[in-house]
Amino acid sequence: MTIPPAQDRLHAQLAFAMEIDKLRRVVRRNTLMDGSRRENDAEHSWYVGMLAMVLAEHAPPGTDIGKVVAMLLVHDIVEIDAGDTFIYDTPAVEVQLDVERKAADRIFGLLPDDQAGRLRALWDEFEERRTPEAKFAKALDRIAPIMANHHNEGGTWSLYKVTAEQVLEKVKIIEEGSPTLGEYATELIALSVSRGHLARA
Amino acid sequence: MTIPPAQDRLHAQLAFAMEIDKLRRVVRRNTLMDGSRRENDAEHSWYVGMLAMVLAEHAPPGTDIGKVVAMLLVHDIVEIDAGDTFIYDTPAVEVQLDVERKAADRIFGLLPDDQAGRLRALWDEFEERRTPEAKFAKALDRIAPIMANHHNEGGTWSLYKVTAEQVLEKVKIIEEGSPTLGEYATELIALSVSRGHLARA
Ligand SMILES: [Ca+2]
Repeated sequence: MTIPPAQDRLHAQLAFAMEIDKLRRVVRRNTLMDGSRRENDAEHSWYVGMLAMVLAEHAPPGTDIGKVVAMLLVHDIVEIDAGDTFIYDTPAVEVQLDVERKAADRIFGLLPDDQAGRLRALWDEFEERRTPEAKFAKALDRIAPIMANHHNEGGTWSLYKVTAEQVLEKVKIIEEGSPTLGEYATELIALSVSRGHLARA
Repeated sequence: MTIPPAQDRLHAQLAFAMEIDKLRRVVRRNTLMDGSRRENDAEHSWYVGMLAMVLAEHAPPGTDIGKVVAMLLVHDIVEIDAGDTFIYDTPAVEVQLDVERKAADRIFGLLPDDQAGRLRALWDEFEERRTPEAKFAKALDRIAPIMANHHNEGGTWSLYKVTAEQVLEKVKIIEEGSPTLGEYATELIALSVSRGHLARA
């Protein structure tokens, strides 16, 4: 590995910058909080990054929030190649990881090696969900659609016939990242069920 | 000032989270890099946050990049109330700051006092453009539309009849944050002029 001169580094960084602009055109199943349209991956990444800053105190003490923010800004970039997978579509979720790894190789690989390695490591850490930072980041990624569906009388839950039991399964991931947020998500789900916006199996 | 119990803090944070979702519906003059549509403030904030991470080495040594990222995620939130102002619309830019200050009071004020103060200070720092972090953040906020217009055969420059002299005036702000990026922006502008995509006055 050679370290390219400054000008080459800048050009590689700009090539990456042009490429990741495409994340704005990856549309997710989930909607804005007001249900007015489906969200794209770029604005979703901003939103969960902001949640990390604002909900930081509900992460375990010692969690590096700057790292959580960086992880969340990067976490969906692989979807430029791999597309969005609906988390309740289990067969799709299983093949997805391989496609996403190839996407990570290609897209982070546009950067100078040292930076490619750092962003790839951040994405791997997020996916492995072993560190407090990755667990908290994943919790935020999971709670945002629950908030939106709760505020939209069921939203994508109704649309795709997702049950309360399936949503509660995802709440375990939120609890692992933040017990307080896990509790809050459980309350939202119970409320949605009691209002008839989320069906039991 | 009293410190509210944990549950009240969470509810205030969630009220803020619901409110800032509206940033996704604030549409800017600028477009995506491919020119396919105008961009919204939320995805723009993600994009410049990513630029900060990737172009970090072009900031002056010692610049706190975590702070730059946080600043960029927050920098346009006031536009939920104040709307986007086109930077070449000088009279609008002048009245804008007062409207934005009121917006900052209202929106950051939804958070618990300590957090409201911290985010407000971050936004003030960005607007004052005195620290290396604020100067670098502002440089990235300014260079992104230049990149997009350059890639779109003039984009909003042609549309709104902006001249090369007006764009070069904004490049001074980029140079102040990062000499390397200032030089790059100057090159893009010269190229756009030579291709007939940006008119001289
Ligand atoms: Ca702005």
